[in-house]
Amino acid sequence: MVDFDSVFSANARNMKKSVIRELLKLTVQPEIISFAGGLPAPETFPVADLKVAADVVFDKHATKALQYGTTEGDNDLKAELIKFEERQGVSLKSENLLVVSASQQALDMVAKLFLDPGDYVIAGRPTYVGAIQAIQSYSAKILGIPFTPEQDGFDMDALERSYAKTLHGGGKVKYIYVIPDFQNPAGFCWSLAKRKALLDFSYKHDLIIVEDSPYREIRFMGEHIPSIYQIDQHGENRGTVINLKTFSKILSPGLRVGWIMASDTIISKLVIAKQAMDLCTSVFTQKWLAEYMKTGKLYDVIKNTCENYREKRNVMVACLEEFMPKRWEIKWTKPEGGLFLWISLPKFINTDELILKAVQKEKVAFVVGSAFYFDQPEHNAMRINFSYCSPDTIREGVKRLARVIEAELVAYEAGHRAQTAPEGV
Amino acid sequence: MVDFDSVFSANARNMKKSVIRELLKLTVQPEIISFAGGLPAPETFPVADLKVAADVVFDKHATKALQYGTTEGDNDLKAELIKFEERQGVSLKSENLLVVSASQQALDMVAKLFLDPGDYVIAGRPTYVGAIQAIQSYSAKILGIPFTPEQDGFDMDALERSYAKTLHGGGKVKYIYVIPDFQNPAGFCWSLAKRKALLDFSYKHDLIIVEDSPYREIRFMGEHIPSIYQIDQHGENRGTVINLKTFSKILSPGLRVGWIMASDTIISKLVIAKQAMDLCTSVFTQKWLAEYMKTGKLYDVIKNTCENYREKRNVMVACLEEFMPKRWEIKWTKPEGGLFLWISLPKFINTDELILKAVQKEKVAFVVGSAFYFDQPEHNAMRINFSYCSPDTIREGVKRLARVIEAELVAYEAGHRAQTAPEGV
Repeated sequence: MVDFDSVFSANARNMKKSVIRELLKLTVQPEIISFAGGLPAPETFPVADLKVAADVVFDKHATKALQYGTTEGDNDLKAELIKFEERQGVSLKSENLLVVSASQQALDMVAKLFLDPGDYVIAGRPTYVGAIQAIQSYSAKILGIPFTPEQDGFDMDALERSYAKTLHGGGKVKYIYVIPDFQNPAGFCWSLAKRKALLDFSYKHDLIIVEDSPYREIRFMGEHIPSIYQIDQHGENRGTVINLKTFSKILSPGLRVGWIMASDTIISKLVIAKQAMDLCTSVFTQKWLAEYMKTGKLYDVIKNTCENYREKRNVMVACLEEFMPKRWEIKWTKPEGGLFLWISLPKFINTDELILKAVQKEKVAFVVGSAFYFDQPEHNAMRINFSYCSPDTIREGVKRLARVIEAELVAYEAGHRAQTAPEGV
Repeated sequence: MVDFDSVFSANARNMKKSVIRELLKLTVQPEIISFAGGLPAPETFPVADLKVAADVVFDKHATKALQYGTTEGDNDLKAELIKFEERQGVSLKSENLLVVSASQQALDMVAKLFLDPGDYVIAGRPTYVGAIQAIQSYSAKILGIPFTPEQDGFDMDALERSYAKTLHGGGKVKYIYVIPDFQNPAGFCWSLAKRKALLDFSYKHDLIIVEDSPYREIRFMGEHIPSIYQIDQHGENRGTVINLKTFSKILSPGLRVGWIMASDTIISKLVIAKQAMDLCTSVFTQKWLAEYMKTGKLYDVIKNTCENYREKRNVMVACLEEFMPKRWEIKWTKPEGGLFLWISLPKFINTDELILKAVQKEKVAFVVGSAFYFDQPEHNAMRINFSYCSPDTIREGVKRLARVIEAELVAYEAGHRAQTAPEGV
């Protein structure tokens, strides 16, 4: 008989299941309030307008939309994406743009393009679990860089030190992976100065930056900051930043369409990679998105989505302040965009264990912080999502979460008292 | 500055552009008759019924269809696929089925799952170019096996010899890749005996078979033959055959949806691979296909498609008989299904050179045979497609093709006479 384990590739043996996607399966029971997923609010999906746009494709472009397309992407959609990016100050030519099957495919393609086994990618501690998976699936490693205490990007001294040490040890760093806008999992947003500092670091060491921007348009407070891709474009224009975008958070994740912006050299090579990966992204969906974008209504959807998430984020932050235990150090981020915030608990609480109690006793779910580390995970944090639930559900969910944490504190305090109690008492 | 070439992975350096997809770009000029693509006939697309099915999704399942889905695939679609396969005699459980973004993704996933650099895959000479690309993109190699003179599967003696030689040389063979039903590029179809012989070979050597069946349902003459997946299932049921299917040839390639049938061990591992590759296939498209399949109309589309292609295949074969030069050995396959036939020319004709003359002088295009070889290509063959053009266009195209070949023969004969003419004459 074939022993499957003996025939899997080294890459396959390095593949790890997504803790999040496994967890999501546990949390589909209706009585559970789940802050675990990264799901956009379904009430933001413009169903009626999308239907109108699909009808245009059926009526005008059906046979083309149902046929094979070019790997590079549908020209109508690319023209709309160029206009969309132009409105944000990015000037883009067709040869710098590739349509992909959403950001996860982009992460896989970039990893395949650059990574040999044992190579390093510089990334944040914590960072997006799907990026970790993609990198691991090519047997590469992550050089994890902590964020500054102000959560404004990497600690640049730590970055320089880690990079030098890796090089000194014979390691090869292939690219830097960052999510400067409302990072998953913590919602961190990098200042302009910090983006420039990272770009300078990449210039100095001849490194490519992979800038993942799924939440870029979902800024619901604060000032717009140029992307690293833009900073390079309007500055030295070296073309060493690869920017990943997606419709998943600004319109719908179920369509599975995103785009990559990069130098023409990189895009040509990615096209060859994509030929062997899926020939092309759904032609029907591309033409459908092109028709939808032509209506100009995407901008309204983004505006409504930002308003929706601002309210929910404010409710979540207010409830955390109201319900969370006030003793010990319990902190949470206050993101200006995106879908998530990040709670840090005292070191003695292990969220890998807490999650089971949370789901079983209080019917509330989150993602364990440890999922977002490549190695040596922090165990005292969690990611919670505010985009999916209604404000009322958020209020109830945070109450439940606070009760789970309160119980943990009480148990610890009791144990601690018992341990430190004088002998004979 | 970053020297991109120095940072690409070894895999990326092994990636080859698809000759076919590059060629297709040259043949989009309207005056060219292209037999080059592998495009289904657009008149077979059931546009109106697909629109009705999409409307059901918009009206009943919109928010679910526009949201993230599970990596395993949409349950409604999986239920319909199970019924579809059952009608063909395949019994299938949900855990043996994975929805993918069409067959090319399946080929990429399977290659990623099994192939380390330098590993071998056994495949036909010639074989599907997209499979070659996927295998090359993981720095693996193909052990090419010639077909029998009767074109009924591999020459089994050659297979045993090549396999033994590869093993002896320290090579590691990971799987056998075959397209038993109306193989791309040549339209070869394997007999039941030959399928069984290959399965026995795989059992004997503990090898996995990857059976690619995009054309399986497109049989327009002759008797249905069980797939190797079925033969294993109804026989020893070792679960070592992985069967790849797709909607691309039976309904529409623009939707980019296919499915993989395999043992639950393999499917679980492929799910983990897919998580890192694209999270999931378009949820909207999956629900749309499920609604369409529920109508039962897919069976009519397949029946109509077979009738359409049978007529076109017959016209093409008749025109080849009528117009092709009768001298020298010019042969073509007479497939009982699929989209292609394969023309073999005398050894002195190199189709890599002929294609330019064909496109420039006679405005007719084909795919050069050499594209379908991993190494040491045959240069005197071509693949021509009969599914896309109308019967009248096929007639005109074959006339043009015959003229190009006739000119080549005349030139050779003139050169040959001059060369062999007695001195002084």
